Amino acid sequence: MSNQELSAAFFLQMAVILGSCRLVGMAARRLGQPQVVGEMIAGVILGPSLLGWKFPQFMAEIFPKDSLKLLFVGAQLGVGLYMFLVGTEFDISTFTRRLRSAAAVSISGMLAPFLLGAGLALWLYHTPGLFSAKATQVEAILFLGAAMSITAFPMLARIIYERGLTGTPLGTLALAAGAIDDAAAWCVLAIVLASFGAGPAVAIKAIAGGALYGVLMLTIGRRLLAHLGAAVDRAGRLSPAMLGFVLLLFALAAFLTDTIGIHAVFGGFILGAAMPRGTLTRELQRQIEPFAVVFLLPMFFTFSGLNTRLDLVNNPQMLLIAGAVLVAAVAGKGAACWAAARLTGADQRTALAVGTLMNARGLMELIILNIGLQRGVIEPGLFSVMVLMAIVTTLMASPVFEWVYGRHARAAGTFGAGA
Amino acid sequence: MSNQELSAAFFLQMAVILGSCRLVGMAARRLGQPQVVGEMIAGVILGPSLLGWKFPQFMAEIFPKDSLKLLFVGAQLGVGLYMFLVGTEFDISTFTRRLRSAAAVSISGMLAPFLLGAGLALWLYHTPGLFSAKATQVEAILFLGAAMSITAFPMLARIIYERGLTGTPLGTLALAAGAIDDAAAWCVLAIVLASFGAGPAVAIKAIAGGALYGVLMLTIGRRLLAHLGAAVDRAGRLSPAMLGFVLLLFALAAFLTDTIGIHAVFGGFILGAAMPRGTLTRELQRQIEPFAVVFLLPMFFTFSGLNTRLDLVNNPQMLLIAGAVLVAAVAGKGAACWAAARLTGADQRTALAVGTLMNARGLMELIILNIGLQRGVIEPGLFSVMVLMAIVTTLMASPVFEWVYGRHARAAGTFGAGA
Repeated sequence: MSNQELSAAFFLQMAVILGSCRLVGMAARRLGQPQVVGEMIAGVILGPSLLGWKFPQFMAEIFPKDSLKLLFVGAQLGVGLYMFLVGTEFDISTFTRRLRSAAAVSISGMLAPFLLGAGLALWLYHTPGLFSAKATQVEAILFLGAAMSITAFPMLARIIYERGLTGTPLGTLALAAGAIDDAAAWCVLAIVLASFGAGPAVAIKAIAGGALYGVLMLTIGRRLLAHLGAAVDRAGRLSPAMLGFVLLLFALAAFLTDTIGIHAVFGGFILGAAMPRGTLTRELQRQIEPFAVVFLLPMFFTFSGLNTRLDLVNNPQMLLIAGAVLVAAVAGKGAACWAAARLTGADQRTALAVGTLMNARGLMELIILNIGLQRGVIEPGLFSVMVLMAIVTTLMASPVFEWVYGRHARAAGTFGAGA
Repeated sequence: MSNQELSAAFFLQMAVILGSCRLVGMAARRLGQPQVVGEMIAGVILGPSLLGWKFPQFMAEIFPKDSLKLLFVGAQLGVGLYMFLVGTEFDISTFTRRLRSAAAVSISGMLAPFLLGAGLALWLYHTPGLFSAKATQVEAILFLGAAMSITAFPMLARIIYERGLTGTPLGTLALAAGAIDDAAAWCVLAIVLASFGAGPAVAIKAIAGGALYGVLMLTIGRRLLAHLGAAVDRAGRLSPAMLGFVLLLFALAAFLTDTIGIHAVFGGFILGAAMPRGTLTRELQRQIEPFAVVFLLPMFFTFSGLNTRLDLVNNPQMLLIAGAVLVAAVAGKGAACWAAARLTGADQRTALAVGTLMNARGLMELIILNIGLQRGVIEPGLFSVMVLMAIVTTLMASPVFEWVYGRHARAAGTFGAGA
């Protein structure tokens, strides 16, 4: 494909991707679902599960082979920037405010799904088409454990901010527990990816390099970035030159973490978490988020959807596995978090709402799954089962939240102004 | 290159590109030059003219062959979005306010450089390494004529807005003439590109298709888009869904104009010009411009720089040609606009300032040159000479403007608040 043909193919592809994200997203919002649910489903629809199955010729024309590399890199840029923005909103200090309850919920929300995921990995390790032959049993256990423990932290945070729940017991509890759980799951994933290299030297480079990157960024890096934040605060605006400098740092961080063998999303997330809060982060969100979320992220959902093959989940055995994964996901995350909240004194509605919000997997799950597939830890069969789980748990969140908490809160007038 | 290697290479490349844009841009601002001058030069530095000449190994590592397709498409997206944003600022109505003078300046600013460019094309048509063997003499004349007539309209507009000159005789005159000239030059380019297809059927498709697209967009399209504008005005904000819809329209427009054989920048520009002014266009600029200008446009400057080979301009003959092109460019545009403004009653300082501003070629020249090179109208030798001309005329603008107008206006207090 010539440069010019590739560029025309890219514009057509983006029109199709943005069009289906809008259509499915609109339908999702009609049903009271967040946009992200629509885009997760739109990606699957564009893939071999529907479009490629019904109209293989059309799919081959919209997604010619040469364009897939482009889609991949655009998707990496999109999730990298997104995780960077998530990092700038990440605030561990909420944790200390309701220490006992938050610790109980986050530990249960990690341990229970991790153990259930590990159990599933033991059961499924030898089933063909799930784990790659390269993955050892320990790696399989760690990966599935981490993948089950994921929370859609950005979605959870958005629901809480949007409904004005930030200062409430529910808000602090869910934010703290969600943040801790995600941080822990990503650490486990980093260890899996690191161990998945070509021998111990590569693993040590990845683990030591990743740890060094994280520690340096959150200590020296944070202090240096504070000067940048102060300069932007004084200026009262983020100039194009400053934005360019931050994007340069982002590109460096993504390159570095990609190269040492963990993943660009870690580079972006930790850089974001090290940024000083204030005009700088507000302006970064304002200037980067629209394009990253509306134009680049759909490339990720589509790339993920192109790898999702629901046709592999069409026999009794795979349906049984899918059911078991879903039950383990909901029991391990939703039910365990509810129980932990109840046992540490939360009232019934708050505990149910915490369980519901923690249970949604959203985009974060797709990110971890795509990394696992791309690095060859899991195979398309398990990938597709897990995508299904991610979609169902995310779909459940809004209606269940409304049912167990929203309608009561609205009646009692305890939703904030943003609700 | 695997997906993963390509993605790591992309992040490293972006770090190098953004880093050199910052460095050279900073140096440019110190010297009173706009950022765009710095980025034009940074692109050339990263190419075979300097980096590839001194450190060929390093250049090959930063720009591996597989990554160039990516850079190309990112660059197309960047200039496409940029031209879309330029379209949303394009306002032909200023023309009517100083009709006689604006008409004189814009006609001189078109005819003189066009004739000089045509003369150059006649002279240079048979010199090897300038025009491609595929280009007929008429196409060579039209292309060089159009390329000489280009004005850096967005830069001109920015200087005028930033210094608060919008309502002054200088402001209206320069804005009107610059807009007309650029529109005319792009029409000529569209005709060249259309005629440059594989036979009359392709040319007719391009010319008729392009004209039809332009007319439909600016009549029916404009009316339909007015509803969108009214909806956004009522809402008082541009929602992510609406932004996604506009980006979908942009992708469609870019695909369409790419496919009929003119170029994606036309699709973007005309879509932008058809947009209703108000909250919609203000928000589009606010939400798209930072990322497009700071992250994507540098990809274009770099791609352009990778094609610029100043080593081809190292013999007496090529230096003579470069000198002739530069003299023709300045005489045809700067001097002719000054003379036309003087003859229609502008005072000396205003006329000199109009000539100076019209003379800068900036990014717009690089866009037309890259299209010419990519479609095979011109060869690397002429491309490099013309890039040199674009850089020099852009470099001249700020100091000459300051000398002939700025210091007097500042002394007289006739610069606006933004100066």
